[in-house]
Amino acid sequence: MSSPLVVQKFGGSSVADADRIRRVARRIAREREAGTSLVVVVSAMGDTTDELLALASAVTDEPDPRELDLLLATGELQSATLVSMALHDLGVPAISLSGAQAGITTDGRYGKARIAGIDPARIREELERGKVVIVAGFQGVGVAADGRAMPTVDVAETTTLGRGGSDTTAVALAAGLGADRCRIFTDVPGIFTADPRIVLDARQLDVVGYEEMLELAHQGAQVLQVRAVELGWVNGVVIEVLSTFEDVPGTRIMEDPLVEQRNKVRGLAHDRNVAKVTLVEVPDRPGVAAAVFEPLAEAGINVDMIVQNIGHGGATDLSFTIPAVDLARAKRVLEPLVRDLGFREMTTDASVAKVSIVGAGIHNAPGYAARMFRTLADAGINIEMISTSEIRITCMIAEDQVEAAVRALHAAFELERPEAPVGTAADAGAPIAGSAR
Amino acid sequence: MSSPLVVQKFGGSSVADADRIRRVARRIAREREAGTSLVVVVSAMGDTTDELLALASAVTDEPDPRELDLLLATGELQSATLVSMALHDLGVPAISLSGAQAGITTDGRYGKARIAGIDPARIREELERGKVVIVAGFQGVGVAADGRAMPTVDVAETTTLGRGGSDTTAVALAAGLGADRCRIFTDVPGIFTADPRIVLDARQLDVVGYEEMLELAHQGAQVLQVRAVELGWVNGVVIEVLSTFEDVPGTRIMEDPLVEQRNKVRGLAHDRNVAKVTLVEVPDRPGVAAAVFEPLAEAGINVDMIVQNIGHGGATDLSFTIPAVDLARAKRVLEPLVRDLGFREMTTDASVAKVSIVGAGIHNAPGYAARMFRTLADAGINIEMISTSEIRITCMIAEDQVEAAVRALHAAFELERPEAPVGTAADAGAPIAGSAR
Repeated sequence: MSSPLVVQKFGGSSVADADRIRRVARRIAREREAGTSLVVVVSAMGDTTDELLALASAVTDEPDPRELDLLLATGELQSATLVSMALHDLGVPAISLSGAQAGITTDGRYGKARIAGIDPARIREELERGKVVIVAGFQGVGVAADGRAMPTVDVAETTTLGRGGSDTTAVALAAGLGADRCRIFTDVPGIFTADPRIVLDARQLDVVGYEEMLELAHQGAQVLQVRAVELGWVNGVVIEVLSTFEDVPGTRIMEDPLVEQRNKVRGLAHDRNVAKVTLVEVPDRPGVAAAVFEPLAEAGINVDMIVQNIGHGGATDLSFTIPAVDLARAKRVLEPLVRDLGFREMTTDASVAKVSIVGAGIHNAPGYAARMFRTLADAGINIEMISTSEIRITCMIAEDQVEAAVRALHAAFELERPEAPVGTAADAGAPIAGSAR
Repeated sequence: MSSPLVVQKFGGSSVADADRIRRVARRIAREREAGTSLVVVVSAMGDTTDELLALASAVTDEPDPRELDLLLATGELQSATLVSMALHDLGVPAISLSGAQAGITTDGRYGKARIAGIDPARIREELERGKVVIVAGFQGVGVAADGRAMPTVDVAETTTLGRGGSDTTAVALAAGLGADRCRIFTDVPGIFTADPRIVLDARQLDVVGYEEMLELAHQGAQVLQVRAVELGWVNGVVIEVLSTFEDVPGTRIMEDPLVEQRNKVRGLAHDRNVAKVTLVEVPDRPGVAAAVFEPLAEAGINVDMIVQNIGHGGATDLSFTIPAVDLARAKRVLEPLVRDLGFREMTTDASVAKVSIVGAGIHNAPGYAARMFRTLADAGINIEMISTSEIRITCMIAEDQVEAAVRALHAAFELERPEAPVGTAADAGAPIAGSAR
């Protein structure tokens, strides 16, 4: 194809009603007029996914994963057809495709499928006909995950990619089609140094490295699905996050050649949706940690920070964090173990939060950790747990202090200041135009 | 399969919300416990289809038929998954299938596809595993209808069967699977001699012949889609119409061996959704009727009754009826012809209605027509147009007189009276038990 190919993704709030769908269609029509070939991935309209989940919950306590996927995937199918219709209304040739029609295959794990492959034949065909191709996000076609032999039937089954899966669809299509760009349109204008609802002088970033974005997303920045960032990283897809509603440049997520020369702390993330579990006086013997974390893993509960204190008197305290939404389930899993393994007790606390500083240079500069701890101490904020990665330091604190912590850290690391220009080469060679602010 | 196989269909009002879905699931579970293999066809929940149509209309004045089909088909998919989940909740193994997964192929005409074939392999497979199979009604997979060559892509496209298409899905599956019965569950207990909301002593019929049911459906009885009846007739599928909410026998639609011995008028139908178009002083020359009706056919407007008066002075008046919903479109099609073909004018009237008597013996008994006309005259009701078939007489009257007409005719033909027993053979040989009232 001679014209540049761009994959765009519009989230649920961008297609929440007929008016917004028409607005999205006008935006697509403008870009197409400029000579761009477009593949557009859409999420379900507004709260559709939550409404469908509520319906399923009203029918049964434990919806069958296969049925739930078939149900939820209809949301994206609906918005895709409506965006296509709105484009027709503007005289723009368009066609909507389900995940299966778009050639997206998955590993078949219901509710959390991973994309196994992209067969771009149908999309290419439609693009060559001059059509804008609208792809229902969040879904693909997989094989039955239950492992039963299905020798005589077609095993094509709809599977969904998990919350935010449309981001992953978009990045995977960009990789599979060799697109020039993948643009994620959302209700915020880009990635900020901190949540601008909390920090008034939070600054939008022009460029964020893949690894930095992964840590930010892991630690609470909800703009982009973690897996979409991973997929972009592996495939070298430049992802731009930008606003549906304002026509301004967003943030590019890409391999950042200037990373070593930038301010080492790039941004803050915080996450209120965590809970702390402490097992008090755990017998200090081999195999205990495995006995605790294996059943949690089997229940699909992600454990994040883990802290084990020095043992005293043959016993130790073991603390860890999990998503707050999984707390009740985790208690059911662990309660039998309290007796079996001989803990004294299990305590839980859902009124905690995590705050993180993220930046690719952090591991080379131990001074950053000290500055973080000092800043929190000066603000009267107690640190309950600490964890670090190569490019991140995370502290667990009381939930009601999270805003104060984010503001104090943003000021301490001077994140409101524009990054110092890095020679004259700043942003030269960036593949996406229009990022200069 | 050793156990009897029954196809059941539940309409939109039967699955309108989570409570009703759970009730339908309990009903299915009871029948399955009795040892029946079940294939269940469902419509979209309540007003879902209308809501999706409204969304499409809010996005564009003329929704693309392919996109609209993909959109509308999601409604049945949603209800199918929810019924399946509700069965799981009762411990009943079940699986929902889209039209494509159920092996339903169509001729590919968007919005009005006809079923081309049933490949029952997947359904059989799931039944053999002991599952109740829930099939999303109203849809099948067809080939692209626009005739363009699509050499390298899979052309599987979702197509819908038109309003009430889930009835057709159910009957087609019953035929394709060689089911013992096809039961259509709806919000009325069966087929009545007239609309019981108008005629208080309207009587439910035990048996209606296919041809009679076709005429009743064509002339306004909305219980069953016309094509479902045709399909049942061609394939000899006995269709039972019965209530979701009451556990009483319904009406069987089947080849009626006793038709000649029954009361010749079996039932009344009426239809308020008609409009009359009159072309005044049409030039009386060959080809004029074709010039009028060809463009209407091309616009997809069904013309029902046609009356052309005796010409006088080289011109004649041509009147016909169309669905009221098509009136505005018909006017747009015909207005250019008024000048081209030299009519004096076109008049239209949407305040008309049709009332019909239907019975397989009518053509052998000319007295019935006379009795119908006399009854309407005695009630002070003017007849504007008349049409007849072998088993039906239809009169067009003013819309505000339709209830009076139906009541008068119901009384005149004594339809409230139970049919005289036809020897001792009445209902012997009927394949469905439990119909004796």
